[in-house]
Amino acid sequence: MSLKIAIQGIQGSNHHQVALDYFGSDIALAECLSFDTLVDTLLKKEAEKGIMAIENSIAGSIIPNYALVYHNDLHIIGEHYLNIHHHLMVLKGQQLSDITEVSSHPMALLQCKEFFKAYPNIRLVEDVDTAETAKRIQEQKLTHVAAIAPKVAATLYGLDIVADNIQTIKNNATRFIIVKTKNKVLPEAEINKASLRFITDHKRGSLAAVLNVMSDCRMNLTKIQSLPVIETPWKYAFFVDITFTAYADFSKLKSLLDIMTEEFKVLGEYKNAMV
Amino acid sequence: MSLKIAIQGIQGSNHHQVALDYFGSDIALAECLSFDTLVDTLLKKEAEKGIMAIENSIAGSIIPNYALVYHNDLHIIGEHYLNIHHHLMVLKGQQLSDITEVSSHPMALLQCKEFFKAYPNIRLVEDVDTAETAKRIQEQKLTHVAAIAPKVAATLYGLDIVADNIQTIKNNATRFIIVKTKNKVLPEAEINKASLRFITDHKRGSLAAVLNVMSDCRMNLTKIQSLPVIETPWKYAFFVDITFTAYADFSKLKSLLDIMTEEFKVLGEYKNAMV
Repeated sequence: MSLKIAIQGIQGSNHHQVALDYFGSDIALAECLSFDTLVDTLLKKEAEKGIMAIENSIAGSIIPNYALVYHNDLHIIGEHYLNIHHHLMVLKGQQLSDITEVSSHPMALLQCKEFFKAYPNIRLVEDVDTAETAKRIQEQKLTHVAAIAPKVAATLYGLDIVADNIQTIKNNATRFIIVKTKNKVLPEAEINKASLRFITDHKRGSLAAVLNVMSDCRMNLTKIQSLPVIETPWKYAFFVDITFTAYADFSKLKSLLDIMTEEFKVLGEYKNAMV
Repeated sequence: MSLKIAIQGIQGSNHHQVALDYFGSDIALAECLSFDTLVDTLLKKEAEKGIMAIENSIAGSIIPNYALVYHNDLHIIGEHYLNIHHHLMVLKGQQLSDITEVSSHPMALLQCKEFFKAYPNIRLVEDVDTAETAKRIQEQKLTHVAAIAPKVAATLYGLDIVADNIQTIKNNATRFIIVKTKNKVLPEAEINKASLRFITDHKRGSLAAVLNVMSDCRMNLTKIQSLPVIETPWKYAFFVDITFTAYADFSKLKSLLDIMTEEFKVLGEYKNAMV
């Protein structure tokens, strides 16, 4: 039986592409129309692993997904970086000049807005998924409507690409995490990256003290993000990603952060995929 | 002549509420359907000041707005915190049970998703603005459709509130910044907060070193956010907010960061509005 992978979106979406890149083609998909549904699917054991976009070099962190991982005790078991390419696609026979409406995910619309400045007559409509519009165009034989979606969607749904790579910034890396409900799966020797969450008091220098300890433990910081703790003024939660070479160094850090910070939690220990 | 304020959204939106709270009622509004348009409006001198949501205690930073401030040389001259309340509103005579579609801003839909779990038959549709749907319901006398919007929208557009405070987290503070194209406007004695951007190399401990200097200069960190520098792997830009009591301390910090970091820029110097 194929490995069942929950993805956000439908076949032909960027999450589908990540599933293929990470797990190969021998997989079964659980298509989820929201990240909430994806988490429910994992908790109900209807899929073994899930794929979630977590940050983007243009739009930054997808904070609600950090909250979903944290509150549902998911464990990050891996990561994958995908350089996103947006293509404008239409029903076969339609031209760029026929388009009056483009429907796609808000993030895709945002990343292509420079391109559409030259086409003020095209109405941009936010939709839940990039591939879903491509599917709908084919199913309903929609004219005058275009989708912004990955190439795999054009192939799957038989659409013509009328403009390719329409994103403003050509180097548009999105980071996806692979999550599951169980604990860490890799042997310690293969682990060289971790995602942490902790809380510090609003005391001058408290974050600096934590970062000094990380540096002393030979950790490299690859990401930091503060977030006010809701309903507790002057307390901050930090989401931090670190890379390291020796798991023993990381073990030492964990013992120290347990003492130095509040609500310290390891969200995941995995293999660094950043190149 | 009234002060001309550019807001994201239309009359009745949360941005409108912030404009009223911050500047009083003797203002003229420039309604902008996107943050890009808002910036253009300021650059073309069609408004004197603009109001932009910049972060939310649930969803985190609105990174594209940081980029807009940075790349267009806007200056943050103030901030305002608004506790957002979402109300479900319909055409007079309609009931909660009549609703089959709710149209609102993605952020509003996200913040109310728990409420709608009890109403699986209601379709949630993303729209550009909270108040715009309220206006459209009244203009087109739409039945079966509800808006999620602030109370001021129900008053302005004559709608009935069928469920109030439907957001999951009742304490939902959103931070707005007041921007203009000119440089700082306050006397130094009134300035006790600043927003900074700088770049550090990916060298172990480089951020810790900067935070140590901030702590030595008696700065309190209220926010930190890393963002990979696009097309430059292993370089990180940091957006940092700090509060302080003496402007002289801040002046010293600026001199030090000029030496310690790359592309150091003060995005704004203003009065702290956090309570």
